[in-house]
Amino acid sequence: MTTTFQNIKKAHERISPFVHRTPIHSSRIINEMVGGQLFFKCENFQKGGAFKARGAFNAIHSLDEVTVKRGVVTHSSGNHAAAVALGANSRNTTAHVVMPSNASAVKKAAVKGYGANVIECAPVLADRESTAKRIIEETGATFLHPYNDERVIAGQGTAALEMIEDLAEAGEKLDIVMCPVGGGGLLAGTALVTRSLLPTAKIVAAEPKGADDAKRSFDAGVLIPQTAPDTIADGLLTSVGEINFPIIMENVDDILTVSEESIIGAMRLMWQHMKVIVEPSGAVPLAAILEHELDLKNRKMGIILSGGNVDIDRLPW
Amino acid sequence: MTTTFQNIKKAHERISPFVHRTPIHSSRIINEMVGGQLFFKCENFQKGGAFKARGAFNAIHSLDEVTVKRGVVTHSSGNHAAAVALGANSRNTTAHVVMPSNASAVKKAAVKGYGANVIECAPVLADRESTAKRIIEETGATFLHPYNDERVIAGQGTAALEMIEDLAEAGEKLDIVMCPVGGGGLLAGTALVTRSLLPTAKIVAAEPKGADDAKRSFDAGVLIPQTAPDTIADGLLTSVGEINFPIIMENVDDILTVSEESIIGAMRLMWQHMKVIVEPSGAVPLAAILEHELDLKNRKMGIILSGGNVDIDRLPW
Repeated sequence: MTTTFQNIKKAHERISPFVHRTPIHSSRIINEMVGGQLFFKCENFQKGGAFKARGAFNAIHSLDEVTVKRGVVTHSSGNHAAAVALGANSRNTTAHVVMPSNASAVKKAAVKGYGANVIECAPVLADRESTAKRIIEETGATFLHPYNDERVIAGQGTAALEMIEDLAEAGEKLDIVMCPVGGGGLLAGTALVTRSLLPTAKIVAAEPKGADDAKRSFDAGVLIPQTAPDTIADGLLTSVGEINFPIIMENVDDILTVSEESIIGAMRLMWQHMKVIVEPSGAVPLAAILEHELDLKNRKMGIILSGGNVDIDRLPW
Repeated sequence: MTTTFQNIKKAHERISPFVHRTPIHSSRIINEMVGGQLFFKCENFQKGGAFKARGAFNAIHSLDEVTVKRGVVTHSSGNHAAAVALGANSRNTTAHVVMPSNASAVKKAAVKGYGANVIECAPVLADRESTAKRIIEETGATFLHPYNDERVIAGQGTAALEMIEDLAEAGEKLDIVMCPVGGGGLLAGTALVTRSLLPTAKIVAAEPKGADDAKRSFDAGVLIPQTAPDTIADGLLTSVGEINFPIIMENVDDILTVSEESIIGAMRLMWQHMKVIVEPSGAVPLAAILEHELDLKNRKMGIILSGGNVDIDRLPW
């Protein structure tokens, strides 16, 4: 199977009853600052506070009755864990979420609050994987990777699908589509949708300089895994997936990297002028526009505002 | 003139080309906490970050060409000032805004950023009023009171009008409508609309215990001005207006007061679960629901989320 635009359309039919068709927001002040027109698809208002619900729900609702009853498993300390928990709820099955013992109490509480069975493990990847493997052996549950999965990519693509459709209905046609890149689930899905619906639009991704494996891989033409990522954008720490990479190579026009300062500055701007809670990862595209001083004169850009899960007691300012 | 539902309908026609039809948001988690269904009309996404644009635009767009050319004046340190500045822009005239010298730099900068002529004065009401009077004498500009004004009340009522209309279109009928009360512009307008469109709905207001003149006046049946208000809800410091009070007495069913702790707690909940920036005043209705443990079982409540102008460097937690 290869993810195609048709898979994304089918994913949208599958998940639409369960996820929000999130609104698109703009800010006059931010538009004046950047000199173009920005449309933010507000996935911070999505179930679980991030676009991740789309991929998780698509994967879980793709499982047959017998398989889904055995439950689902993932290892994640972030938005994917919450999304899998919510998706499992919607099919009355159990989500087993392996979380590192040093994951924040806020995140653990959120995932438990969504009804998941949280299993703690040592904070190293080997232990996460072996713990997940043990649960799969014990329960027969299905493993759901956060991004290196065709069903997840198709689900994440539905955000751009809705954005482009809703803007078309409002008479707006995008010149550029932008999203952040971590593992590449959102970017691969967004790129496939954009290439199909807006063949002439540019597709640009943004990532932190402190986790710039996507940029380095894109430039080299081969996957270079991320080692020791260091960024406040905690949704973008991972390496690009093997399934995601060829889709990105084929469809994406450019990847821009940004400093931590730019991320925090863009996040502040969005809080102040858009009155929305955006997590650092969700501010990375605006950070790239500002840091690289993109020429957006008379141009319309659609941006996936990826999520809003922030510990409001520990803000970076 | 007496403000009527018809005035509010006319105000809506007048201002619709200039203000946002703001969205209505809900939170599954908050609904579960309160045991009912809450619909928040998100005026934090309104121009200037608060519902105040509605009243200011209605007043300014009610002025004839000759009068409006002489400019408009107000004295305010808050959301009304920004709203008047934006309204004046939309008619290519000057807004003179008298602000106390101790108003926050953030607020002064915002009002200046909207193009207003900011005049500083000593931080006492007498000086504010005399400074405004001097400007009126010098320029012939029209004074725009933040709430004790029929045109302003009619404008503020348009938020509830849109909320009730949009929910009706979605098949939802409200049992209760709630908003915060400071000067009573929003409350008077909201009450008139609700009484006309939903005759059997309850109309409830909420205010801080530290600025509870509306509650005391409502119970006594006579206006009791607020002295020495003390609350984090800086949009609700003022006394109820003389024009507003009889409308409130006639139409409002109850006024609830809340502690500072409840306001901050409700604000946190809205930030965390709705991913929206709400200012303390905008969190007062949810604070009242939680503090008074309102029985909302099987009930639908519409709430005007009044604004989102917060200094994000000085959060109350």
